[in-house]
Amino acid sequence: MRNLKITLEYDGSGYEGWQSQGEKKTIQRTLEQCLELITQEKIRVIGSGRTDAGVHALNQSANFLITKPIGEQKLLRAINSVLPPDIAIKTIEEASLSFHARFDAKSKVYLYRIMNWPVRPAVGRQYIWHVPGRLDLAAMEKVLGCLEGTHDFSAFCGSGSLVKDRIRTVIGWAIDARPSGLIEVTIEASGFLRHMVRNIVGTLVEVGRAKIDADQIPAIMAGKDRRQAGRTAPPGGLFLQEVRY
Amino acid sequence: MRNLKITLEYDGSGYEGWQSQGEKKTIQRTLEQCLELITQEKIRVIGSGRTDAGVHALNQSANFLITKPIGEQKLLRAINSVLPPDIAIKTIEEASLSFHARFDAKSKVYLYRIMNWPVRPAVGRQYIWHVPGRLDLAAMEKVLGCLEGTHDFSAFCGSGSLVKDRIRTVIGWAIDARPSGLIEVTIEASGFLRHMVRNIVGTLVEVGRAKIDADQIPAIMAGKDRRQAGRTAPPGGLFLQEVRY
Repeated sequence: MRNLKITLEYDGSGYEGWQSQGEKKTIQRTLEQCLELITQEKIRVIGSGRTDAGVHALNQSANFLITKPIGEQKLLRAINSVLPPDIAIKTIEEASLSFHARFDAKSKVYLYRIMNWPVRPAVGRQYIWHVPGRLDLAAMEKVLGCLEGTHDFSAFCGSGSLVKDRIRTVIGWAIDARPSGLIEVTIEASGFLRHMVRNIVGTLVEVGRAKIDADQIPAIMAGKDRRQAGRTAPPGGLFLQEVRY
Repeated sequence: MRNLKITLEYDGSGYEGWQSQGEKKTIQRTLEQCLELITQEKIRVIGSGRTDAGVHALNQSANFLITKPIGEQKLLRAINSVLPPDIAIKTIEEASLSFHARFDAKSKVYLYRIMNWPVRPAVGRQYIWHVPGRLDLAAMEKVLGCLEGTHDFSAFCGSGSLVKDRIRTVIGWAIDARPSGLIEVTIEASGFLRHMVRNIVGTLVEVGRAKIDADQIPAIMAGKDRRQAGRTAPPGGLFLQEVRY
């Protein structure tokens, strides 16, 4: 038995998210079907975590057990030749049998892309949230400063989540604004709750538009009430950028 | 009568190019239909030039005559609200009645994006040509150096073109290669023949892969024979970046 660790990139626009759910078209299911086609084995892919419908990944990590003695590079080429064009395996490496893509993840880095420009984009519109109007970047940075560290992130947890422990650690963040109007928000955390990045970014934009005062953020977090924070940013702007082990 | 100059961005993936051809879904036809819907006038949009099926534009320029006394900003918002998401008008301004988007263009700048990486991209694959394997950038720059200036570009003119005068002036060029594998080729010329940028880029890649020697380029150009140059690069990597007046 071998345990292979993979990293993969995907355009989530056409998928119902990562996780297999019956007959729904998901990244996990598509991967498993292609791997089974090539290896003629029943394969169960373990992702580092789920991504929502419409969310993309630049470097998702996963692992799976196989018995076939096929070389990693040969398998990589074979699987990329059968995967649809919106999913690509970037690397395959042999891991120890104990490696588990979800349990062993130390942190994840998400990237959210905003186009802050009067006119909506046409090229690359699948990969960005169009936000017209002036945004106060200093106020948005202040919000991220409040989130840094270990906190209960219930106020940013999507409804319907069954997770009880909502304490997570935001390890780092950055906002990079370009003259083109592109704003890239990067957040690294020990783990993320359901819709957490999208709820944080939705709140950032409401603070940037002065609909919420940045000074209210500590109280919103302490209140642990999702309804007090901003709305959920759309999925297309979100990318799982890296999983750190 | 008013003459309006517009700049627009489009994702050409879903279109049969710029130019109206009967019932085919083209950028020009889509624009005209939306403008007619809003202005209730018969509108003929004059583009700076055609773009092929699948080619994108970051800043295409065009003009059209209307009689309605609607403000430019109001018209911009109205037209963007009815245009499909893969086309967006970026600016509208009043031009002199003599302004003609095609005849008055002094030069055009095209951008071609190549992903030079072992594994194919998934995110943004609509906007790039995946070229695996080592590319000799210095040899590619040498080719562009040969193209600079005023020449007969018949060797890079797509078959089927009815244009007799194939003398054009390449005003400037650049190759920008990033550690990510992204290579951006930019070419500015007084005008472009059918498939000219894609034929140049296809040739560049064959030179980069040492299939064609850069030293052969002057002879290939002098031969004026399309079959001597490299193959046509795919349309998805090509962007009309700017039209200069």
